[in-house]
Parts: sequence; structure tokens; C-alpha cells
Amino acid sequence: MRLAVIPGDGIGPEVVAEALKVLAEVIPNAETTNYDLGATRWHATGELLPESVLGELRQHDAILLGAVGDPSVPSGILERGLLLRLRFELDHHVNLRPGRLYPGVRGPLADPGDVDMVVVREGTEGPYAGNGGLLRKDTEHEIATEVSVNTAFGIRRVVADAFNRAEERPRKHLTLVHKTNVLEHAGSLWSRIVEEVSLEHPDVTVAYSHVDAATIHLVTDPSRFDVLVTDNLFGDIITDLVAAVTGGIGLAASGNLDITRRNPSMFEPVHGSAPDIAGQNLADPTAAVLSVSLLLDHLGEKEAARRIEASVAFDLATRDQASPGTTQAIGDRLAALVSSNSRQAS
Amino acid sequence: MRLAVIPGDGIGPEVVAEALKVLAEVIPNAETTNYDLGATRWHATGELLPESVLGELRQHDAILLGAVGDPSVPSGILERGLLLRLRFELDHHVNLRPGRLYPGVRGPLADPGDVDMVVVREGTEGPYAGNGGLLRKDTEHEIATEVSVNTAFGIRRVVADAFNRAEERPRKHLTLVHKTNVLEHAGSLWSRIVEEVSLEHPDVTVAYSHVDAATIHLVTDPSRFDVLVTDNLFGDIITDLVAAVTGGIGLAASGNLDITRRNPSMFEPVHGSAPDIAGQNLADPTAAVLSVSLLLDHLGEKEAARRIEASVAFDLATRDQASPGTTQAIGDRLAALVSSNSRQAS
Ligand SMILES: CC(C)[C@H](C(=O)O)[C@@H](O)C(=O)O
Ligand SMILES: CC(C)[C@H](C(=O)O)[C@@H](O)C(=O)O
Repeated sequence: MRLAVIPGDGIGPEVVAEALKVLAEVIPNAETTNYDLGATRWHATGELLPESVLGELRQHDAILLGAVGDPSVPSGILERGLLLRLRFELDHHVNLRPGRLYPGVRGPLADPGDVDMVVVREGTEGPYAGNGGLLRKDTEHEIATEVSVNTAFGIRRVVADAFNRAEERPRKHLTLVHKTNVLEHAGSLWSRIVEEVSLEHPDVTVAYSHVDAATIHLVTDPSRFDVLVTDNLFGDIITDLVAAVTGGIGLAASGNLDITRRNPSMFEPVHGSAPDIAGQNLADPTAAVLSVSLLLDHLGEKEAARRIEASVAFDLATRDQASPGTTQAIGDRLAALVSSNSRQAS
Repeated sequence: MRLAVIPGDGIGPEVVAEALKVLAEVIPNAETTNYDLGATRWHATGELLPESVLGELRQHDAILLGAVGDPSVPSGILERGLLLRLRFELDHHVNLRPGRLYPGVRGPLADPGDVDMVVVREGTEGPYAGNGGLLRKDTEHEIATEVSVNTAFGIRRVVADAFNRAEERPRKHLTLVHKTNVLEHAGSLWSRIVEEVSLEHPDVTVAYSHVDAATIHLVTDPSRFDVLVTDNLFGDIITDLVAAVTGGIGLAASGNLDITRRNPSMFEPVHGSAPDIAGQNLADPTAAVLSVSLLLDHLGEKEAARRIEASVAFDLATRDQASPGTTQAIGDRLAALVSSNSRQAS
């Protein structure tokens, strides 16, 4: 297994170190290569993602990314030039974001119920297409446009993936989240494709929710959701809310998948680089560790993936929520749990 | 005071009846004219908003709207042809949505803190501009676009209004909510205008939050917010979340304001027509009553507006949350409270 690792900025390197520690317990011979992309490289060289590096990244089975972003870099530079560029260049069309409230974890809701959903967010088009511009800049007549571009091809492959995931889950339920009553063109295309693909999955029940209503349900009745499928921007918004509801972005993992497997998929915690706590051994590496679990699952190492997730679940159920320990302590604990789980299993 | 009333569909007529009952206690001589726009008229005549009716609506001081929407009408028809058309034709550029967690009200959060914010949502442009289309419909090469149109003119008037509101509030704090790191053109325009207008308001502190992060803060630390200003679509999404956090859309009021006063402003509960409980005397009319309070405030009847809000606050603090009563019972209670408040004040 050849992994490219982009520790990135802020707490990125800290949480990635722990994630790799845990990985080593299940795949001792994984080969990892570090890539120093992020704020430091940009400051030093002006480079965000050189073609040569992109070429090297493509030679790996998967990519593990910590976090990118630093207050010293103007907003958007690293996000668009590095993170989104990776997602687009590597055709990461399925942005997979599970949202599970693990036993023992207290989120902000008084009475959350049994929360276990997965959001399939489209990752390569919609309002993220980078299509738009400014007219009459710096005059009182200035106009800014942003064009959401949605293709049947792009939507269908994501919707198909979401239905496949729904099939494999006990509840077999899928909710399309959009804003069809206002965004009528994109909404019509998404709705028609969901309807079409649903014909191939007669045992999956299908629901629809406007994105605004979905935010209500996510805080009043989150257990209603099983698989959600949605566009890039709505997915961005609701997955942060899902993360909050399930205990915070310190626990939320994600995968940017090319499900055709032509390009390596990329796995990252949903949280950012959190520069305010960087370098202090304070960040919770759990989201990075769970991202490794998603990575292994994607690479077919189902048993190893399951072991890591089970260890995280055990740790979350038993850890002192108020002071779960330092970054390293949590990593050590998870590595030890995974190691003892491995020994039991073998 | 001449008011146009659009009871609309579902629970609309029921909650509007109670709202008018309460209004009568503070403005006994208000003249109201009913307009039967909505699903029934559309089924009967195919009409959504005839020019002649629009002309008549313009002759009023304000509009009170119940709710529009019915499952018998294809999604989007009434929303775009009636509700959004009214907002656009009457230049309702400030969509005002207060979010206050009243004492006694239990929202979904375990520990919400002191929540009292107001969202100033842009109401006449952004992704709601209706700009976009379909290409190669019903082929595998179909493309759907949605264009978000943002003008300096449109943004500045809304941002100015938000700063004015922040000035009048004790905390004088304003948060711009956008997604500047991805939607760089619209984001740049919004950010620059907020910066410009802030120079005229040196005592208002300004913060920025990406819309995804805002959804997290709204459930983990909603009391941080005072005035929020945002675009039409982000405003749509976060105000439903704000409504949920502050006890549900049964309590959330809104005003669609033309702050130039060239056109009548329109006031409506944030909730929809809720056809499942329509005609059963089950809907909570509180949001409609609070919308009347916003209406009166906008028309300069500050004292009457305050009285209604105080009566609602009192009722919310003392009502049985589990069974607050029928639509009529709540309306009667609120009318009685307003009436006794009025007698005390006079
Ligand atoms: C950093 C940003 C560009 C990114 C996004 O908007 O996709 C982030 O919010 C995420 O959800 O991964
Ligand atoms: C019904 C719909 C068109 C409307 C909107 O999107 O503005 C509603 O959600 C609202 O927030 O008032």
C-alpha cells in the first residue's frame, strides 16, 4: 500500500502523525511519502500544487491529508489552489461524509436519538465549478456572478453511488437534498436523475428535502436520515451541521472518492487547520484516524477499517469527554486499542 | 392603516385569522382587504399573481401573508409565481428574520445560552435571480446552470440596513455570512461592501463566518450572533436553522421589506402551509402574530408592536409547552394579553 501524505498546515501534521501511528498497527508495511504542500511551501516558493507533484500523487493508492489553511495566506488561495484543485484534478466526485453519533459522545442536541447517516456530497461541479466573474469592478455598478454548473453525467454517478450505499445499509433509505422550488433547472435535473436511478433500486425508499428544511430536521430529528445525496455547496453546508450534531468536527471524517479508481482518492478530517491551537498537542486526532478507516475501507481493507472504527467507538464510549487527553495521548490510546483488537482478531 | 391580506393555503388562513384578531386589539380601525391568491385560485383560473391584483396590492401600507403551497400544485409554481414574484416585484430587498429564544421556550439544544439575533437576508438577487437553464434536456449530456447574480447596488442597501440595525442593538455586532473562499467573485463583492460600509459605523464590530461554519456555531454557540447579513440562499438556509434553534418555525416571523418604502412591505411567518395539519385548529399562530408585530414596527407603530411582542413573550413563558392550545385558543389568549397590556399602557 503506497500512500501519499499531505500533513498541511496548523494542526494538520499533528493529527496526521497520530493517524499514521494507528495505520501502522493494521498495515505495518504501508509505504508513506510526505508532500509539503500548504502555506509554508506557498510562502517559500509561491507554489500551490506543481504539476510534477500532482503527477507523483497520482502514483499512489490513496492520499491522506491533514488540513490546509493559515491566516498568513489570503482566504481562498490554498482552498482553491490546493484543496479544491486536488479534488477536481483527481476527479473526486463522491465526497463521502459519514455522520454517526457514537455512544458516549455528547453533541449539542438535548435529545438527538440514534444518529447514523452518511452524506454523499457531489465533489466536482455545482457552484464549485469556479465559473463566474466580476463586471465593472470597483464601481457602483459592479456585478458579480457565480455559475452553478450541473451535468447529467456528474450527477448520475454520484446518485448511483448514493443508491449503492443505501442498498448496503439496514434502512435502505435515501434523501435528496436540494432547493428544487427555487433552483428549478438544477433542481429538475437532480430530481429526474434520482427518480431514474431509483427504478434500479426498488428496495430503497426515497425522500426529498429542501436544504433549508433539512437544516431543521438535522437538529430536531436527525435520526430520520440514512443516506443523503446532494450537490457540492449544499453538501458543504449540511455536512458541517451534521458534524456539529454528531459531536463536532473533531470527530468528522471524510473521503474524496474517485469511484472509478482511475485516480487516488483522498481522505481528510472535515475540520480545518485550527491555527489557534496548532503545535500545542491539543487537537483531537480522532477525525484523522477515522479518515484512515475510510481510506482502508475504500482500498478494500475492510477488516482493518472496521477494527479502527471499533477502537474509536470504544475510546469515545469510555474517554473522559471533558478532557480526552492530548493529541498524542489520544493517538497512543487508539493505536493500543487497534493493536489489541488486531491481536484478538488474529 | 390599509392592509392587504393574503391568507393563502393550508394553515395560512387559520393563523392569519388569529393574527388579525390580535391586530384589532392595538389598531382597531385597521382596514384589511383579502386577496385569494394561492393554490385554490391557481386551480380555478390558472392565475398566480395577475397584474391587476399586483396593482391593488401596491395601494396598501403593508401586506400580511399566511402561507402558500399545496401538494396538489407542482413544486415551485406557487413559490416562484407568487411568493418570490411578490418579493421581486415589490423590491423586498431586506428579508428580515429575527431569531430570539424566548424564556420558557425549549428548542432542540441542550444548552443554547441567550439567543437573540436578527438575520438580514438579501431578498431580490443572488441565486434567486431565476437566471439559468437547461441544455440538451433529457439526454445523457444534459447540463443545468443556475446563475447567482449579485450587484453592488443590491448588496450595499442590504448591508447598510444591517449596519443600521446593529447600531440600534446593545451589542452592535455584525457578522457577514458567505462562502468567500469558494464563491470568490460574489464573496469578494460582499466582503468589500461590508468593509466599506463598516467605515461609516466605527462602533459596530464586524465578524465574518463561512456559511458552513455558521451552521456549526448556530448549534454550538448561537449566542455569539447579534446581526447577521447574508445573501438570499445562505439566508434561506440559515434562517430555517435559526428558527429551529429558537423553538421552531411555529414561532419564527419575517418581514420582506422595501426599506425605501416605495412599495408595501410584506410580513409572513417563516413556516409553510403545513397541509398535513390544515383546517384542524392545530397550527400555532404565534409566528403570524409576531409577523404582525414586525409589520407594525415597520409602519412606525412601535408601541403597538412592542405590546404584541411582550404579550407573546409572556404567553410563551407561561404556556404549557407540550400542549399550548388550539390555534384559536392561542390567538384568543394573545388577543386578551395584548388588550390588557393596552389598557395598562393607556
Ligand atoms: C475549505 C473549503 C474549500 C472546503 C469546501 O468548501 O469544500 C471545506 O469547507 C470542506 O467542506 O471540505
Ligand atoms: C418557499 C420558498 C421559495 C422560500 C424561500 O426559499 O425563500 C421559503 O423557504 C422562505 O424562506 O421564505
